[in-house]
Amino acid sequence: MPRHVREQQMLDAAVRTFAERGYRAASMDDIAEAAGVSKPLVYLYLNSKEDLFTACIRRESDALEAAVRAAVEPGAAPDRQLWKGLHGFFSHVADHPYGWAVLHRQARTHGEPFAAEVQLLRDKLVDLVTGLIADAFSRAAVPAAAVPAPAPDSDPASDPASGSAPGGLPEEEVAALAHALVGAAESLAIRENGRPGRSAEDATSTLMNFAWAGLDGLMNGRRWSPDR
Amino acid sequence: MPRHVREQQMLDAAVRTFAERGYRAASMDDIAEAAGVSKPLVYLYLNSKEDLFTACIRRESDALEAAVRAAVEPGAAPDRQLWKGLHGFFSHVADHPYGWAVLHRQARTHGEPFAAEVQLLRDKLVDLVTGLIADAFSRAAVPAAAVPAPAPDSDPASDPASGSAPGGLPEEEVAALAHALVGAAESLAIRENGRPGRSAEDATSTLMNFAWAGLDGLMNGRRWSPDR
Repeated sequence: MPRHVREQQMLDAAVRTFAERGYRAASMDDIAEAAGVSKPLVYLYLNSKEDLFTACIRRESDALEAAVRAAVEPGAAPDRQLWKGLHGFFSHVADHPYGWAVLHRQARTHGEPFAAEVQLLRDKLVDLVTGLIADAFSRAAVPAAAVPAPAPDSDPASDPASGSAPGGLPEEEVAALAHALVGAAESLAIRENGRPGRSAEDATSTLMNFAWAGLDGLMNGRRWSPDR
Repeated sequence: MPRHVREQQMLDAAVRTFAERGYRAASMDDIAEAAGVSKPLVYLYLNSKEDLFTACIRRESDALEAAVRAAVEPGAAPDRQLWKGLHGFFSHVADHPYGWAVLHRQARTHGEPFAAEVQLLRDKLVDLVTGLIADAFSRAAVPAAAVPAPAPDSDPASDPASGSAPGGLPEEEVAALAHALVGAAESLAIRENGRPGRSAEDATSTLMNFAWAGLDGLMNGRRWSPDR
């Protein structure tokens, strides 16, 4: 069996073991047994428990990022892009519950260097979403620059006239919206992962409506749907 | 000086020290020095570094929860309640940057029992927001039960007819919206804490518009404002 294939098997076993038992409690013996290989081989390939855990985080991060990127349809209408991106995210999480558990629970709660790896993924997703929102506003019906400044006494730095993204929405606010959206998706994915009676479609629909129509829209029966 | 006052001084010093140096690097010597007391007194009052850290997390959790609860105006219009609650949250975070750093960064990245303490705070905030959203929908112009089910192929568990909150929106979806909103607020607060040129009002306004008007509203110039 080629090294690459064997290594992926070890990572599969490690991701599942870390997710189920937790980083601290999971032993290299457990992981070798789950992978059906000897412990020395795990050490030979992945060096140490810390390196193995880091490799797991990176693989799961890359896979999640790739799933979201692949789901977005460049050039589609903004709401469709958002719908597809969110669906890509929630579907990947639903299909990879162990990977998600490693990312959101294990990697973030065992200090450095693991937390930094997850932060990197988060930064990439925020950048992706920031680009999508800026792009959407640049094609918006009402140019975002026409939108009044956020707060009555807001700082000059958030003046729509300064540091604007294409279309006119202040860059600061585009980035803030992206952080809000990524945080909402993350929080919802943590809640819904493996929850009986809630599918990836349900989570996507809830968040799509929240992010797109807003609570006011929902309360007034204005609901977004993919078929509209 | 009464014990209670002395203890609060120690906690003030500890919160700041943990926030600035991190849980691992902060020593009881650092904390005693910052509090202007002897190290044995810190041990006498707070027992151990772990107990001291736990006491810090609990104090900051309680203060944040109390600030949000105090900010909400019972009986006010739903958008005003949301605006006030978010403003209470972001203002408290802006006024307590060390407390927030302890909660979102230190407490969550150093395993148990600390992560569980922060989870407790999160659960309380989600419950509070769930109640507010359910209440808002129960008074909505269009009863939420009239809103079509989320996804074409959605599960019977999310059928609006079953397990409805007052007003008709499925309980599952109200709770999911609350998780999304709390996650968005948390993510934005992490980004904005101490960010130059962004005030608590800016963060509140951004998230209020996101949560209330949605991206579609923003793109079409429908922006919520407290003065409308």
